[in-house]
Amino acid sequence: MSDGPVPVALCLVVLVVQKFGGTSVADPDRMREVADHVKRCRGRGEQVVLVVSAMGKETDELLRLARLVSGEPPGREMDMLITAGERKAIALMCMALHEMGIPADSFTGSQAGFLTDTVHRNARIVSVDPYRVRESVDAGRVAVVAGAQGVSTEHNVTFLGRGGSDTTAVALAHGLGADACELYTDVSGVFTTDPRVCSSAHKMSQISFDELLEMTAVGCPKPVMRSVEVARAYGVPLHVRSAFTWESGTWVLEEGPEVEKAIIKGIVPDTSQAKVTLTGVSDEPGIAARVFRALAEANVNVDMIVQNVSDHGRTDISFTAPRESMSDAEQICAQLKSEMAFEEVSTDDTIGRVSVVGAGMASNPGVAATMFEELAGVGVNIEMISTSAIRISCVVRESDVDKATVVLHTAFGLDEGA
Amino acid sequence: MSDGPVPVALCLVVLVVQKFGGTSVADPDRMREVADHVKRCRGRGEQVVLVVSAMGKETDELLRLARLVSGEPPGREMDMLITAGERKAIALMCMALHEMGIPADSFTGSQAGFLTDTVHRNARIVSVDPYRVRESVDAGRVAVVAGAQGVSTEHNVTFLGRGGSDTTAVALAHGLGADACELYTDVSGVFTTDPRVCSSAHKMSQISFDELLEMTAVGCPKPVMRSVEVARAYGVPLHVRSAFTWESGTWVLEEGPEVEKAIIKGIVPDTSQAKVTLTGVSDEPGIAARVFRALAEANVNVDMIVQNVSDHGRTDISFTAPRESMSDAEQICAQLKSEMAFEEVSTDDTIGRVSVVGAGMASNPGVAATMFEELAGVGVNIEMISTSAIRISCVVRESDVDKATVVLHTAFGLDEGA
Repeated sequence: MSDGPVPVALCLVVLVVQKFGGTSVADPDRMREVADHVKRCRGRGEQVVLVVSAMGKETDELLRLARLVSGEPPGREMDMLITAGERKAIALMCMALHEMGIPADSFTGSQAGFLTDTVHRNARIVSVDPYRVRESVDAGRVAVVAGAQGVSTEHNVTFLGRGGSDTTAVALAHGLGADACELYTDVSGVFTTDPRVCSSAHKMSQISFDELLEMTAVGCPKPVMRSVEVARAYGVPLHVRSAFTWESGTWVLEEGPEVEKAIIKGIVPDTSQAKVTLTGVSDEPGIAARVFRALAEANVNVDMIVQNVSDHGRTDISFTAPRESMSDAEQICAQLKSEMAFEEVSTDDTIGRVSVVGAGMASNPGVAATMFEELAGVGVNIEMISTSAIRISCVVRESDVDKATVVLHTAFGLDEGA
Repeated sequence: MSDGPVPVALCLVVLVVQKFGGTSVADPDRMREVADHVKRCRGRGEQVVLVVSAMGKETDELLRLARLVSGEPPGREMDMLITAGERKAIALMCMALHEMGIPADSFTGSQAGFLTDTVHRNARIVSVDPYRVRESVDAGRVAVVAGAQGVSTEHNVTFLGRGGSDTTAVALAHGLGADACELYTDVSGVFTTDPRVCSSAHKMSQISFDELLEMTAVGCPKPVMRSVEVARAYGVPLHVRSAFTWESGTWVLEEGPEVEKAIIKGIVPDTSQAKVTLTGVSDEPGIAARVFRALAEANVNVDMIVQNVSDHGRTDISFTAPRESMSDAEQICAQLKSEMAFEEVSTDDTIGRVSVVGAGMASNPGVAATMFEELAGVGVNIEMISTSAIRISCVVRESDVDKATVVLHTAFGLDEGA
């Protein structure tokens, strides 16, 4: 099976870290399919290191058990519990490889040399010293590493959090000096927009780290943003691809030389956010800081922030945040209201957002103009605007998101064959 | 709740290692009950260390998964897989304790300082250095240790085998200098005979290590023999008791001063074995050794061996072994048959065995005579006899085992209130 065209620098790939998520190793049949894929890779002369997540819904099941036992389980014990899932998966994966005649060794996060901080449930990697993994690879074996786990500087088992397996894979690829890190998922790559919204959406063969980060930030479900940040920081080439069709996916690389042209890569619809507006806020230094510090301390993940021009010393501030954080956000703002003399706090959870993502946008103002014209042309009203070097996002009515996505996908030449 | 009369030496108990098997921690409700028990113990001023097995049928489920993936899974990976079960259990047990306001820390075998040899699936403990467990206890916390696991001298995860949690508990009690090791099970102690066979069976309050070893060897299901051997070697007082009624169970201690009297402690029925007979074996040195070496190498656990007197340079050898080993045993003997010129190999899986166990038997030959008379009195034919310093076993027809057990229980004064 061909893996399709890959960037020139990757044609000499000899060591690849392959990460398989929970659905990719959900049962013995799936594990056999993964083992079969590893066999094909080795047949092409590649050295393979696997990173696997817990099987299927196992992590959810462990969380359910914890809730049955305890209202507020201690973090140290949660991590001991959750990491058992990946241990099962690595052991069974090794068995499936052995059964296919491929020698393999499983390694827990600790055995693979992942040292973390002491923040249970969501530990950060301090260092990676994968000498045992390296020994296994050098002996011609397949090392199978448990995702999302490590051992803390206080010698306790730690969990890197949901999606931590992606981070494990990228950090391991860097630690081993691997030629690439492949993230196998249940989607076949990164698409120009959501195929459920726009039938002409198609898979990109290549995208830059920054572009992918913007796609992720505005709703693209995979891979986990944190892992992309690590990959970008260390220049680890990523390949996001399918563990079901095994077709070539999307390579995520550092920006190429053509970055100066405005190349729109994708349109990202998002209906996961809601909007909070504070009206009549005193327009003096430190007020906005106070509001957003309080939100940050409550872990409300604020995304877009827009502040209107001041009118007689009073201004309005609007921001968006995930809908599930709305009750927290509203409560915090209500507390600050009396203290800081806002006129009103209002929320709106019927908003949506559509974003245009691509490199070189900052030096090509025509992109924003085109976007606004196209939206106006189909009668979509823009409620908020936010821009970055590689993204323009417009908040619109939730009911307008699909229409906006389709018209922009066409306008920016993304329809396949266009 | 009273724990009943305990030996004088144990009245000052301050540190107790309590082991809970799979049925005792099968679900969240059971874990809460165990946590409640720990709270009562701490209320009495005891320091408690827990050793727990995997929940309920979890180990079986993991073995089932392994069989779905691999016909012959590597030992290293089996151990990685199986030990995940105990990790889940210790984490959830700690959560249940926290929920009850009891501070607790979980420890894997490795974290608890269990260093083992490199024999996967059935590793032996090399040393125990439970300094982290000690720190936890000294801090007024409950340490919860994963049963049946350790880390090998080659830094791999090892499993001590089925029933290994008992061994973990006893070795930990020794390593901590604990005052006692309590083995909580689904039976309330060691009985004078099987209550299902003999209605007058009753629980013993005390038994010696040697007696318990004989009871175990001839069919008493719990605790695991290996753990009793370790307890005897290090003089760790054991308390076999129920995790369901919480009543006081049976103390297992070194022999008391009254060892010179023949005191029959129990009658042990056993229908788990079958018999193999080799007829016309050449009666020369080394022949028996050759047979039993071959059986040992195939892990056939031979129990009784009887060799008849020689007749014209030929003899018969009979031995018993677990019924599940019969096909292996028969195959091995058949191979040796042509090589070593036996006349015949025959097997019989309709045998049973009844044993009388008690201290001081060797110097009281009347015990054997009484046993044989009683069996003859109810028409039970004896097919094989084997004796040790504290046990006399007779192989009889399987259908005679219950009758033999009842008559011997009465004859040796074991009926309650007798």
